[in-house]
Amino acid sequence: MRYKLTIEYDGGPFQGWQRLPDLPTVQGALEEALFKLTGARGEVSGSGRTDAGVHAAGQVAHVDLEKPMPPQRLCDALNAHLRPHPITVLSAEEAAPDFHARFDAVRRVYVYEILNRRAPLALKRGQIWRVPRKLDAGAMNAAAQTLRGQHDFTTFRDSQCQAKSPVKTLDVAWVQGYGELISCRFEARSFLHRQVRSMVGSLVEVGAGKMSPEEFAATLAAKDRSACGPVAPPDGLYLMRVDY
Amino acid sequence: MRYKLTIEYDGGPFQGWQRLPDLPTVQGALEEALFKLTGARGEVSGSGRTDAGVHAAGQVAHVDLEKPMPPQRLCDALNAHLRPHPITVLSAEEAAPDFHARFDAVRRVYVYEILNRRAPLALKRGQIWRVPRKLDAGAMNAAAQTLRGQHDFTTFRDSQCQAKSPVKTLDVAWVQGYGELISCRFEARSFLHRQVRSMVGSLVEVGAGKMSPEEFAATLAAKDRSACGPVAPPDGLYLMRVDY
Repeated sequence: MRYKLTIEYDGGPFQGWQRLPDLPTVQGALEEALFKLTGARGEVSGSGRTDAGVHAAGQVAHVDLEKPMPPQRLCDALNAHLRPHPITVLSAEEAAPDFHARFDAVRRVYVYEILNRRAPLALKRGQIWRVPRKLDAGAMNAAAQTLRGQHDFTTFRDSQCQAKSPVKTLDVAWVQGYGELISCRFEARSFLHRQVRSMVGSLVEVGAGKMSPEEFAATLAAKDRSACGPVAPPDGLYLMRVDY
Repeated sequence: MRYKLTIEYDGGPFQGWQRLPDLPTVQGALEEALFKLTGARGEVSGSGRTDAGVHAAGQVAHVDLEKPMPPQRLCDALNAHLRPHPITVLSAEEAAPDFHARFDAVRRVYVYEILNRRAPLALKRGQIWRVPRKLDAGAMNAAAQTLRGQHDFTTFRDSQCQAKSPVKTLDVAWVQGYGELISCRFEARSFLHRQVRSMVGSLVEVGAGKMSPEEFAATLAAKDRSACGPVAPPDGLYLMRVDY
């Protein structure tokens, strides 16, 4: 029986989603919990990798169990075995035998959160990016509109990215300020490696007045990784939701 | 020169606000930072104590410096010396020589946050109270209205409370649900020891259907500590603001 899992995690203590020998990863911890539960080694297949330190409020994965069990029991048992890792299975559902968390996803939603203030973080450490320099969220949002639609995102793609094509379609890109909090939202069928953090890093350059929205548009059009500003840290990035 | 400090902290690693010998406290860490900065032992006088594990987004304290310095420099220097503690001085302002953080406060604002879901916490661990049993936020809010105004709060006062009188006036008491998040807000000139956590603990009994809003009103009227439900944990409690 195949199950769809919806998963929340704090990326801080992990070397990212993907299983790695002898290093703490989210997938590794989930597969270890699955092994403790079933006694069998099985794969927990995610909708995609997240980098070291990146969080998820709604990552999705699929798993196969030889012996079926009620979804709520699977959910509770995995959570019991996941302790003390900051990973929790929010829900488990029975899925079609051919459901695939990665290939069937039609939309991924990422949110990047910035705290724009001078004082260091006490609350929310590792959970938001603090930017001391005053940012203009309106200018950031204006620049973000350039990103919407289908583009060659080479500028905002990590040099290690293994995707065949740098062309992606961004359906939603907006930046909104709420007092000191600046929230950035991006939605697309799929993203390139480090795309969100690369875009946010350059948007912050715009917000700080170091780059105009027009210059930002030119960096996208350049299709040149070296035109990208500093990449934003993982702390503020959340995989919020995956739609099927 | 006297200064007013506004302070944020994660209460998790501390045995509360108040200085204690050989134990980590928020006041102790602040006074140590002040000593490193000035070379003199001085007191950081808070608007009130917070218990072990209780957070602040806007605690206020006053300090005296023999040699005045620009407020922003004081703020930055204290923050530099506070590392790596999860305590940050959000702002420092020059204050009148007789300004007193505790005695001059006219309003304290507390927020208590509850995550009402079955799955354990991965994000926000130690920063919110997870309650698995389904809660009715409307019933909690109805019961909370009983608390408004002037009452003898003996029921919701810790047996160790040292306040002379159990009579306090609660100006604001409301509970609002936003999906899985339930936020409780309380505003008063001053509070008794563990009053907010005691009230929230009993409000959760109402939300879970174990106590009616009428029974809740009766527990307040009983003026009897033994009528109080379980006290809510510190994790979800934030001292948000102190007004002068």
